[in-house]
Amino acid sequence: YSSEAAAGSQEQPLVSVSAVLPAGGTGERMGGGTPKQFCRILGRPLISYTVQALERISWISHIIVVVSIENVEIMKSIVKQYGHKRTIIAEGGTSRHRSIFSGLKMFVKNSLIQKPEVVIIHDAVRPFVEKDIIFKVVMAAKEYGAAGAIRPLVSTVIASSPDGCLDHSLDRAKYRASEMPQAFLFDIIHQAYHQCNDYDLDYGTECLHLALKYSKTNAKLIEGPPDLWKVTYKQDLYAAESLIKEIISQQVCVITDMNENAVQTGFLLHETLKSHVKLVKSLSLILCKDSNHLQNILLGQCYNFICISDILSNFQETQQLVKILEKTNASVLSSIVLISVHMDDLENAAFSSEMHSFVELAKEVKKKNIFLYGLIIHYQQDNLKLQETAETAATLITALIRDRNPAFVGQLLVA
Amino acid sequence: YSSEAAAGSQEQPLVSVSAVLPAGGTGERMGGGTPKQFCRILGRPLISYTVQALERISWISHIIVVVSIENVEIMKSIVKQYGHKRTIIAEGGTSRHRSIFSGLKMFVKNSLIQKPEVVIIHDAVRPFVEKDIIFKVVMAAKEYGAAGAIRPLVSTVIASSPDGCLDHSLDRAKYRASEMPQAFLFDIIHQAYHQCNDYDLDYGTECLHLALKYSKTNAKLIEGPPDLWKVTYKQDLYAAESLIKEIISQQVCVITDMNENAVQTGFLLHETLKSHVKLVKSLSLILCKDSNHLQNILLGQCYNFICISDILSNFQETQQLVKILEKTNASVLSSIVLISVHMDDLENAAFSSEMHSFVELAKEVKKKNIFLYGLIIHYQQDNLKLQETAETAATLITALIRDRNPAFVGQLLVA
Ligand SMILES: [Mg+2]
Ligand SMILES: [Mg+2]
Repeated sequence: YSSEAAAGSQEQPLVSVSAVLPAGGTGERMGGGTPKQFCRILGRPLISYTVQALERISWISHIIVVVSIENVEIMKSIVKQYGHKRTIIAEGGTSRHRSIFSGLKMFVKNSLIQKPEVVIIHDAVRPFVEKDIIFKVVMAAKEYGAAGAIRPLVSTVIASSPDGCLDHSLDRAKYRASEMPQAFLFDIIHQAYHQCNDYDLDYGTECLHLALKYSKTNAKLIEGPPDLWKVTYKQDLYAAESLIKEIISQQVCVITDMNENAVQTGFLLHETLKSHVKLVKSLSLILCKDSNHLQNILLGQCYNFICISDILSNFQETQQLVKILEKTNASVLSSIVLISVHMDDLENAAFSSEMHSFVELAKEVKKKNIFLYGLIIHYQQDNLKLQETAETAATLITALIRDRNPAFVGQLLVA
Repeated sequence: YSSEAAAGSQEQPLVSVSAVLPAGGTGERMGGGTPKQFCRILGRPLISYTVQALERISWISHIIVVVSIENVEIMKSIVKQYGHKRTIIAEGGTSRHRSIFSGLKMFVKNSLIQKPEVVIIHDAVRPFVEKDIIFKVVMAAKEYGAAGAIRPLVSTVIASSPDGCLDHSLDRAKYRASEMPQAFLFDIIHQAYHQCNDYDLDYGTECLHLALKYSKTNAKLIEGPPDLWKVTYKQDLYAAESLIKEIISQQVCVITDMNENAVQTGFLLHETLKSHVKLVKSLSLILCKDSNHLQNILLGQCYNFICISDILSNFQETQQLVKILEKTNASVLSSIVLISVHMDDLENAAFSSEMHSFVELAKEVKKKNIFLYGLIIHYQQDNLKLQETAETAATLITALIRDRNPAFVGQLLVA
């Protein structure tokens, strides 16, 4: 979920690579209802995050998403709404292996989609996959024919006897959990799927097993990071939401107008926020309007903005910024938090007609996934007091950014 | 984490039962730093939630918590701060098995702690264990000598060859993940630990394995719920926090004074909140003051209160309620959310000196783990508009209760 630049490696695998994303599951483990790949996290379906994770990697040519026939239309609308590129939807089979096989066949039967040398197989419900592990798995597949990410076992694995009692337990140190992504030389895994029997196709789940059994290929195993875990249960959805919130709250951009107090407060907030947020950027409102500065900041995965103007009645500047943000379409993939900061005496900040307009504006832009909040900073001449106020303001700003709570949109907080 | 009554079964196992909670781990998997059982969730160490889960079950006589020597003082202070009962701290060994063995020895060497017929072994990092699965495991241990909770495998388990390639994969359907709690006839597991060798004690992790190997006892395996999962990684801490927030936000109590508007709004809010919160209770402020009504509501695991009085300047009623809540000590185990609701014209709600006192009160009671927020409801004669306002208010109240964000304490929201 980081930008390609942030992911570090600019290495390319020097083979043609595409991916198959089986997403035909029915979500039984979540207790019925929406299949888990379509569960929404911060309003957006889980599978869209996973597609985005693959899409960010420029050397993956095509991403074949395999869904069951009843979810084809849903998937089409997801691809359209979130603007996914290089994504092709395939109709899935009745089991995981049959779905993967359907995906692989697309490369053979569809003349517009070039058959890749290496194919990545990943899960729709593992959105936190990073470029680094994908690159490693692809390179190992090129060398060994097959490769897969593994993790240490968290629990001991046991075998039970027919009467439901312990038969034996496995030595945890000798086994690993097989995770995703996996990658294969296309011909190896394609041949394996062609040769395997109906029992394998219906009841098997492990691609590495098929490559071994039918293509005599012992996959290279690569230790992956803990965030490869699979969103399976309700608590996993909660964890995924928190991780995504953590990622999108790492950057904030402070935008100030030219008013003297605003500039001073902007500088103070910038410094104070540094101990709360990983990366703090600053920009003057004029630069925002006139150039592609804002676009660059958005491309750098910054989804949080603070607009500092002097008094509340001057929230026209915030209004202008909202318009610029709307035009960029940046809020398609993630909500944008915009905090309108005003220096004021508390008495002036009464619930005036300006306040009413602010609430209306907030309601309006919420529909476009821009979450607008207000923050009054009681401007004080006393430096020590101003510093204290800035600390409170930074705490409130950080909380608003971390929570991204749509319920508080249009509220006016006071530091 | 539910009350004993809510947990359903009032059955008792009709054997003496105690528990051992090994908590000697060093938290390597969390990336160093604080061992995971001492990580704080909503300000409280994870292990305290797990101890509470066992403590709620009246038929568990003693809970032996085994910690490494350097954490004995920390554990003592946790037991004291959170008022844990029937909890005994034991000094642990250098491995999981040695820690459990230390715990078991307490029952033998300490004449004040009666040796139980059945001993439960649970993990400090599995706080969501419910009475139901503990009861089942204890009953099965009584019958079979040993029993343990299991779960289906989430990932395929594989064995690797010495060169780091796939050797073989296990058929997922034939294996299970061994989870906690487990339970044993005391003599069976005690004897197993006495007979096992140093290699077992240093490198083994599975109690069921020891019971089988040294006491020839095939444990009964019992399918447990998904929330038995073990807090292992950062994402698990996030998931645990969300689950705990979900649990403590299921109940809200609406308290109203006798003012006519307040009573009407209280009734309206009560009805509107029903579609947001699982259980909504109502109480008049007078009953709160005069009786043990409030104490009963707190014992019923209600941690969220809405105090409705007429205008903001009347927040003395909230002040009185704060004092009553403070006296009950209910905020020791969980933060209490108190939302002070006032009907007002927006103009009157200006940042007056009352507002300043409100902020000061909120700061003060935050130290006692009571989170005080303000909410202005614009009282309207028009029924349809009032209904809309009540819906907005309910959304804000639900968000405040769900988030329990200390940063927003003392803020005044507007519905
Ligand atoms: Mg395949
Ligand atoms: Mg034991």
